Amino acid sequence: MKLTLVGAGPGDPDLITLKGVKALQQANVVMYDALVHPDLLDYCKPDALKVYVGKRLNEYSCTQEEINPLIVHYAQNYGTVVRLKGGDSFIFGRGYEEMEYARQHGIETEVIPGLSSSYAVPALAGIPLTTRGVSESFWVVTGTTKTGQLSQDLHLAAQSTATVVILMGMHKLAEIMTVFGECGKADLPVAIIQNGSLTEEQVVTGNVSTILEQVSTSRISSPAIIVVGEVARLRELQLTDLQQSIADNE
Amino acid sequence: MKLTLVGAGPGDPDLITLKGVKALQQANVVMYDALVHPDLLDYCKPDALKVYVGKRLNEYSCTQEEINPLIVHYAQNYGTVVRLKGGDSFIFGRGYEEMEYARQHGIETEVIPGLSSSYAVPALAGIPLTTRGVSESFWVVTGTTKTGQLSQDLHLAAQSTATVVILMGMHKLAEIMTVFGECGKADLPVAIIQNGSLTEEQVVTGNVSTILEQVSTSRISSPAIIVVGEVARLRELQLTDLQQSIADNE
Repeated sequence: MKLTLVGAGPGDPDLITLKGVKALQQANVVMYDALVHPDLLDYCKPDALKVYVGKRLNEYSCTQEEINPLIVHYAQNYGTVVRLKGGDSFIFGRGYEEMEYARQHGIETEVIPGLSSSYAVPALAGIPLTTRGVSESFWVVTGTTKTGQLSQDLHLAAQSTATVVILMGMHKLAEIMTVFGECGKADLPVAIIQNGSLTEEQVVTGNVSTILEQVSTSRISSPAIIVVGEVARLRELQLTDLQQSIADNE
Repeated sequence: MKLTLVGAGPGDPDLITLKGVKALQQANVVMYDALVHPDLLDYCKPDALKVYVGKRLNEYSCTQEEINPLIVHYAQNYGTVVRLKGGDSFIFGRGYEEMEYARQHGIETEVIPGLSSSYAVPALAGIPLTTRGVSESFWVVTGTTKTGQLSQDLHLAAQSTATVVILMGMHKLAEIMTVFGECGKADLPVAIIQNGSLTEEQVVTGNVSTILEQVSTSRISSPAIIVVGEVARLRELQLTDLQQSIADNE
């Protein structure tokens, strides 16, 4: 009995790891999420059981409380189970909860990390989260906390020079921009990326004070990744020019 | 003429992406760093040129100013160049600088993200950077900035509930722990991981006030990854117990 958590990466099926593919090839059961690319299921054995467990907004899907016992059920009855999740399983993925639940039921567990969309999607859209002379740290926050409130950490993040990445935050975009605005960051560049790594990729760029308007006139929607920081200007600007402009302002 | 930046991931050669392997298979030249697993070079064509460019501490290696023109040289003379770097190329990797330099010389560029050690190494050591009820954000900082000073952002990070990950920070460990101590975080758990994802992996755990002593009596050294936050306790504690202990303290 074994559960292997596999991160599928940001979307493009070629962005899974070799180790993830090998786990898929050996699994008797694959439990997969909505954000996983369907081509990845082609790696499964012909007789493998493929179980869709969600979750996409406004659509039927299993709750976490339903998924956990399902994992145990399949491991006990079929042996090897792969839990295939978009991005990485341990970055807001609730993967650790699934792993611990399985362990408590005597199931061996392994984790195979995946490319987290938090940095891979910006990278593919031409935005490095860190770059010398521009940003020396990055902070990844979820817009969807357990309590439904915006994380208090965002107020600290907004005061920092870190590139701030907000996942699952589109429904709180106005509130998030207000936090940055209150920290005197009205001009800080913002990029919003949907369907990163896929041909349907859409990007909207602006700054803290303009991005809401720009989103409203675009066709961008959830789920999308919000990047706040000087690096977001690199889509339009040469790095050397950006470094110069930052140095001039110091 | 094309430059493809490929992130090799944290060490284990199976943690590269499929897309990264495909790029290696097509390259005429592969320029690789010290932290890249040698097995990855087996994917190269038999006649591909394999160029070692460093960089490891206290060992001969090319400077960034030498690497950039080398990339252009190889692209102009051999066509397809893969730049293979440990982890991800855009997370403190100076990859963006190489990409822009190549573009300025008329070379087409592409980036294939890799698993960043910042979260993949902790995950493989049993530490998720985020977990419900424990941590809802994470901050990745470098200990080695352009100026040699510790990033001022660390003071904000130390006040937050974010899991803080410091890369290339072992030589500043005492200074980093002082920052957390001054923010009243003397008891905050710390984990230090060396050779993550490989069989030689070593982990030392403690808290802000004890970790220096523990490191000095262990054989752990650079490069290593420093994780500061409640999640570091998950190596010894059940998640449910940790969630309860955090809830009790709120």
